[in-house]
Amino acid sequence: MPDFQKILNTIYEETKHLSDTGKVATYIPELASISGNKFGICLLDIEKKSYHIGDFEESFSVQSISKVLTLAMAMSCIGEKVWDRVDVEPSGDPFNHLSLLEQENGIPRNPLINAGAIVIADILVSELKEPKKDFLAFVRQISGDPTISYDENVAKSEKATGFKNYAAANLLKSYGNLKNDVLEVLDFYFYQCSLSMSCSQLCNTFYLFINRGKCRQQQEFLTVNQVKRINALMLTCGFYDEAGEFAFRVGLPGKSGVGGGIVALLPKNFCVAVWSPGLNKKGNSTRGMAVLERLTTLSDLSIF
Amino acid sequence: MPDFQKILNTIYEETKHLSDTGKVATYIPELASISGNKFGICLLDIEKKSYHIGDFEESFSVQSISKVLTLAMAMSCIGEKVWDRVDVEPSGDPFNHLSLLEQENGIPRNPLINAGAIVIADILVSELKEPKKDFLAFVRQISGDPTISYDENVAKSEKATGFKNYAAANLLKSYGNLKNDVLEVLDFYFYQCSLSMSCSQLCNTFYLFINRGKCRQQQEFLTVNQVKRINALMLTCGFYDEAGEFAFRVGLPGKSGVGGGIVALLPKNFCVAVWSPGLNKKGNSTRGMAVLERLTTLSDLSIF
Amino acid sequence: MPDFQKILNTIYEETKHLSDTGKVATYIPELASISGNKFGICLLDIEKKSYHIGDFEESFSVQSISKVLTLAMAMSCIGEKVWDRVDVEPSGDPFNHLSLLEQENGIPRNPLINAGAIVIADILVSELKEPKKDFLAFVRQISGDPTISYDENVAKSEKATGFKNYAAANLLKSYGNLKNDVLEVLDFYFYQCSLSMSCSQLCNTFYLFINRGKCRQQQEFLTVNQVKRINALMLTCGFYDEAGEFAFRVGLPGKSGVGGGIVALLPKNFCVAVWSPGLNKKGNSTRGMAVLERLTTLSDLSIF
Amino acid sequence: MPDFQKILNTIYEETKHLSDTGKVATYIPELASISGNKFGICLLDIEKKSYHIGDFEESFSVQSISKVLTLAMAMSCIGEKVWDRVDVEPSGDPFNHLSLLEQENGIPRNPLINAGAIVIADILVSELKEPKKDFLAFVRQISGDPTISYDENVAKSEKATGFKNYAAANLLKSYGNLKNDVLEVLDFYFYQCSLSMSCSQLCNTFYLFINRGKCRQQQEFLTVNQVKRINALMLTCGFYDEAGEFAFRVGLPGKSGVGGGIVALLPKNFCVAVWSPGLNKKGNSTRGMAVLERLTTLSDLSIF
Repeated sequence: MPDFQKILNTIYEETKHLSDTGKVATYIPELASISGNKFGICLLDIEKKSYHIGDFEESFSVQSISKVLTLAMAMSCIGEKVWDRVDVEPSGDPFNHLSLLEQENGIPRNPLINAGAIVIADILVSELKEPKKDFLAFVRQISGDPTISYDENVAKSEKATGFKNYAAANLLKSYGNLKNDVLEVLDFYFYQCSLSMSCSQLCNTFYLFINRGKCRQQQEFLTVNQVKRINALMLTCGFYDEAGEFAFRVGLPGKSGVGGGIVALLPKNFCVAVWSPGLNKKGNSTRGMAVLERLTTLSDLSIF
Repeated sequence: MPDFQKILNTIYEETKHLSDTGKVATYIPELASISGNKFGICLLDIEKKSYHIGDFEESFSVQSISKVLTLAMAMSCIGEKVWDRVDVEPSGDPFNHLSLLEQENGIPRNPLINAGAIVIADILVSELKEPKKDFLAFVRQISGDPTISYDENVAKSEKATGFKNYAAANLLKSYGNLKNDVLEVLDFYFYQCSLSMSCSQLCNTFYLFINRGKCRQQQEFLTVNQVKRINALMLTCGFYDEAGEFAFRVGLPGKSGVGGGIVALLPKNFCVAVWSPGLNKKGNSTRGMAVLERLTTLSDLSIF
Repeated sequence: MPDFQKILNTIYEETKHLSDTGKVATYIPELASISGNKFGICLLDIEKKSYHIGDFEESFSVQSISKVLTLAMAMSCIGEKVWDRVDVEPSGDPFNHLSLLEQENGIPRNPLINAGAIVIADILVSELKEPKKDFLAFVRQISGDPTISYDENVAKSEKATGFKNYAAANLLKSYGNLKNDVLEVLDFYFYQCSLSMSCSQLCNTFYLFINRGKCRQQQEFLTVNQVKRINALMLTCGFYDEAGEFAFRVGLPGKSGVGGGIVALLPKNFCVAVWSPGLNKKGNSTRGMAVLERLTTLSDLSIF
Repeated sequence: MPDFQKILNTIYEETKHLSDTGKVATYIPELASISGNKFGICLLDIEKKSYHIGDFEESFSVQSISKVLTLAMAMSCIGEKVWDRVDVEPSGDPFNHLSLLEQENGIPRNPLINAGAIVIADILVSELKEPKKDFLAFVRQISGDPTISYDENVAKSEKATGFKNYAAANLLKSYGNLKNDVLEVLDFYFYQCSLSMSCSQLCNTFYLFINRGKCRQQQEFLTVNQVKRINALMLTCGFYDEAGEFAFRVGLPGKSGVGGGIVALLPKNFCVAVWSPGLNKKGNSTRGMAVLERLTTLSDLSIF
């Protein structure tokens, strides 16, 4: 293993002074008010040794990163049946996500785009007694951290303005690929996206995916095969329309969120979380992308 | 003028026994329960002489035919400003209506497809004090018939199952092209589609469009230029993805609805309404299309 | 009938000084070198009385206007069988013409877009002994003008640079909707587009479409029904992505070309040709569109 | 390292008797005449130890597998400039490849789809003195095998019938993203696809990609970073519209061809080639996919 702390220190210094770190998301006030200067990195290796720097303990809105966690929970509930309702291919086209749904009769391209994650949310609403409570319990359990929670204000703001998600959910419903009430599913979906976590908590949670399905406490939540599949999905579909670019430049499975967080991981080796709210044009953290590219270059560790 | 009554009689006999009249719409129970044998024709010439046969006085759900009437009312309210929010081009592609909205940043292709009609509904919700009441009054006034009304059951069924319309309205909202609340606009939209009218009433209403904007009582509701524009839109966009086919085979501006009604007209000459609930694969009345093609052939009257 | 000469004089004065007449086509040198100041109008009424002004006797490259003439000749050869290989619906989408071909398995949307016209060209190559010679003879015959000819330089330039047409033809070939050799069909196609005609000659040729299929010499080339169909196609598909706009603003069937020519007509009344090489963003003559809009307004004559 | 020979023997027995191995490609006679019973596997580990079974020494048409090799050669010629002319994102949509080109102004989604590989071919035609000869020399050099050659009959058949490739090349040309003559570039492209190689030769060639850019003879052809990028592209884009499925089920970078070959690899560990001509609906070798899925399962080796 390379000297991760030294590498993180180097990268932190290099990227702290990036001239253009992109724009903070502004579509809801809770995200718009976050300082673009926030910047934290945490890395957890397979031995559970943690390396970190900057604002790594400050919570932020994980947003789309939560899609990996709901997918994991859905797979732990109903296994491979998930794939009857959502595909596993990259979505390719940036500008017509709803069009793809129309062309493909209501089967979303993969579970990490919004439409796919809404189908996963629908599965959880069907499977869980108290979806919001039960999902939070699941996240707390795999992370071993009972302090993780939702940010109600974020959830409420998304609910008031997330019209594209209402559009997607209603379109899914029209194709019969949403079993529960549209508003009930979206209520859960907006809460899941509002999960508030720090880089440190994200690493503790995603340890599962580098440890063959077992959490930090060695409890098994997913099979080896299920983890392999989720990691493959993160690689091919984890970065919106920049998935190919990320695989190409960084070479690690990962997932980003518009809150400025990115999680990435090398199976059996380490997982890493970065937070820096400024986003590039594709909606991924500018500094986060730079940090991860430097990390795989300096450590010479990647899946390729 | 040809002998319209004789022509209608001939066509009625010819098309009454069509072996395959298509399938009645089944997406809501109120439409599914209508007999496929219903069949009526009414023609009103510019001299207000009426010709008719069959079930021409029985009311049915006009559905999309109402889009011409809301467009007329919106143009009478705000004039050419309508075109800031909706385009005037044929939609072309059958299977990705929402995709077109995405590609064109929330500007619907024309006011006679669902997304466009929802924008028109939004305009009326903004302009009218009591949209449902005021629009009904408008229709009663131009037709000179105070008995026309909504079918509340149809409106309620559409409201409970019209998920694609919810999707379209939310997508419009996400692009800022819906000013009012989504549910309020759709409530009006579902009511407008539930308008219940007979062939005879439709002719009395559409007389406006053959009479240069003046209704049967010679009151002016639209300018000559506005009528010309609405007629052009009916020709290029009035028949879903069969607009070209209709222009080609029939050669008259017109508008169809999934209730099995079709209205068509020759400016300064006549308007005609047909009702037969069986639909072809494109969603237009099978017998209605046949009747109108025969009518322009036998009368040798068309715009081309 | 209104006083057409007076109307043409008025319009000519009004539009001669338009501040922005758009840009002349520059993709081949033969078009790029034409002066943007050229401007002619000719109108021929059903009584064969001609009205004209400006450069109405100067020849220019008719380009896509020729598609109406090859369609007419194909229909006169094989009748309704044409529709087995090309549809009659507006193409709608501006930016993905080849995509539509892919989605619709090699059946072009209509015969007035490039892909459709290439299929028509293929039909003529199959039906005619000497396609280029025979088609020219057909045009000369219906116009009664033996001086009309191709512009070989235009044809050669198109041949050297028309890569999108090569792409379209090869795609058609891959779907089995091109029976002859790609290069042979395109050779004919590039020649047809290079037809050189004046406004006056265009009126003499298009007289056929206002006179129920009979040319100026009263010889019948098309049936009444075939003319009706071609006129319907010109209305719904004659102006690229501006077909709806043209129907809406002008209200006449017509066809434009990138050489700056537009022909339009009112069945049983008159046909009119305008030439002014400056094009708007959709590729139609800017002045030509203005002229025709004014003409239908001042004469109060349109199909709507 | 697991006992690869034992694993290959097991898998070979398991998959030899698959009831449905799909259909052999029939679009050219040279492929159509190949027996669907052909079946060979070869695996080469980083220590250059080779394991094999079945028809592993019989040559077949590598087809699209050659795209990885032309990309490698283009990167060795002009480095990162390649990415000015082709993107690195998965293509997503199966049915409208040309449409994507239109939407994205002639920049192909990635170098492993046909349009992208044609751009790469164009780069080589610009860079090499004798493109066909020089590329063959490159392949012989990295494989250390001077017997590898083109199959002229395959190249000629593709040339006579590859209309979609002519369409793609002309479309690229129309966007200015093809610098050389269309026919010259396609001539090279059809030859590259006709490369004839055995599983054994493919392993010797792809050793470069598991050995950080150095061939079997330890000569460096690509930098570590370039290899990482090509491997990432194989993972996200190597299997037509089944790239996500392959990453998901197999979890290795790889590339398939319609000749029934698949190459896959685990960086720093091994590369493997399978040949079985029966294709699944997405155009990938049915047995090849099954073999590789079993291989990563039995060996517990994958990048995820």
